[in-house]
Amino acid sequence: MLNLTTTVEIEIPFHDVDAMEVAWHGHYLKYFELARCALLRKFNYDYPQMQASGYLWPIVECHLRYVRPAIYGQTIRVQASLLEYENRLKIGYEIRDAINNQRLTKGYTIMVAVHAATRTLQLTSPTIVTNNLEQVCAY
Amino acid sequence: MLNLTTTVEIEIPFHDVDAMEVAWHGHYLKYFELARCALLRKFNYDYPQMQASGYLWPIVECHLRYVRPAIYGQTIRVQASLLEYENRLKIGYEIRDAINNQRLTKGYTIMVAVHAATRTLQLTSPTIVTNNLEQVCAY
Amino acid sequence: MLNLTTTVEIEIPFHDVDAMEVAWHGHYLKYFELARCALLRKFNYDYPQMQASGYLWPIVECHLRYVRPAIYGQTIRVQASLLEYENRLKIGYEIRDAINNQRLTKGYTIMVAVHAATRTLQLTSPTIVTNNLEQVCAY
Amino acid sequence: MLNLTTTVEIEIPFHDVDAMEVAWHGHYLKYFELARCALLRKFNYDYPQMQASGYLWPIVECHLRYVRPAIYGQTIRVQASLLEYENRLKIGYEIRDAINNQRLTKGYTIMVAVHAATRTLQLTSPTIVTNNLEQVCAY
Repeated sequence: MLNLTTTVEIEIPFHDVDAMEVAWHGHYLKYFELARCALLRKFNYDYPQMQASGYLWPIVECHLRYVRPAIYGQTIRVQASLLEYENRLKIGYEIRDAINNQRLTKGYTIMVAVHAATRTLQLTSPTIVTNNLEQVCAY
Repeated sequence: MLNLTTTVEIEIPFHDVDAMEVAWHGHYLKYFELARCALLRKFNYDYPQMQASGYLWPIVECHLRYVRPAIYGQTIRVQASLLEYENRLKIGYEIRDAINNQRLTKGYTIMVAVHAATRTLQLTSPTIVTNNLEQVCAY
Repeated sequence: MLNLTTTVEIEIPFHDVDAMEVAWHGHYLKYFELARCALLRKFNYDYPQMQASGYLWPIVECHLRYVRPAIYGQTIRVQASLLEYENRLKIGYEIRDAINNQRLTKGYTIMVAVHAATRTLQLTSPTIVTNNLEQVCAY
Repeated sequence: MLNLTTTVEIEIPFHDVDAMEVAWHGHYLKYFELARCALLRKFNYDYPQMQASGYLWPIVECHLRYVRPAIYGQTIRVQASLLEYENRLKIGYEIRDAINNQRLTKGYTIMVAVHAATRTLQLTSPTIVTNNLEQVCAY
């Protein structure tokens, strides 16, 4: 059983804070992305490697649940975990306050492979995904 | 049965387009918001009126499903519909190409009322919501 | 003497408003861009046409002067004017309140042509720019 | 002579990269802001302290000059330096590649104090600015 996870820390910047003095809800998809890219790098399959492999990986679904708001200057810890990879990349996220560990937000994203040259949707993940993941898990 | 809906048109700006030459997935929460504010105005309860009423309405959940990408200069039509209002505001969204009507994206957001002064979560919507909605439906 | 100008109207969205309850200063480069693209379209040389012509047009300089803030829901009118085109595209901007015409912001951007294939900077604008502009001015 | 400067490192995120595969020019005002907030913290006068002191500090002018583009995943080093403080806060910025030190961007921002309660512009900086700066320089 694969158990790939990673964590990034982000400090809420002033330009992400709205008139309610909390991080605007839409910015969390940026926080998710920062953690997702860190996770994809763990098995050497971040955006540049995706492109080089001949596949695009559009996001086809996002879900976010907001438990507590985040304010300017607060440091948050975003954990991304690989939940599915065989047919699509489903990644789960959990955001916690970096100091008191309170859960702030959770969610997931789903990406599917599209063959770049033919624009055809792949119903199973290209072998490069499994190959790269096996290399990581061998360690 | 209440049937409140509204539509806004948006042209995808250059600064919303990513390296894949499509609108970056996170920007759709901005498109949803533009339609949501237009919907809230229909019953006179947009952000300024929310604030004046003594309640904050944080978004506690978002869901997005992406069917087709949107490209630079494409005009999209975002429809927002009020799905629930008794205990929370659940709003559904559907984005279609403004010309050929193809469905591009759909989703929903859920907001809950928080009493601004005491920061207490309201388990039913404040009466101002029902009152304002009744006035609209009386027409 | 060429006198090319255009105007777009934008309503300040909630997600552009910061904790000071005014549009965050960095978003004005988006407002400038919306007017710039409208201006470029006037002589058929917006981003898709730039790409097709074999040139990139990176912005090499921006200047913004903020006179008055803009708030949520305010409608602004952004005017873009072509100031130089022979060697580079210098575009001036003026943002005014759409209702009372008060000046809110002004600025300019400068773009230079880069030959996409060779990545070489062009010291004079490619002839397509002059050609397209002449066609517009013929009207 | 005061010589206050600070540096932050930022990795260009995917969501900041445009269709030209470089960081969109408008995002640099966010990079400037991250360095500016770090600089303001050095003399204990970041946004929360500004608010507590009874003054707003709107940005009234920005200038950016782009020398080289930045791409996805590139780490940039943003240096902010306090250039003027007596009558207004003028901060200069220089962005360099974190690895090869090549200069990518430079610019400045100017902020002025506005008394929050009366909304009156201050022609000299409030004494809290000088006091805080003196404390830092005493070290």
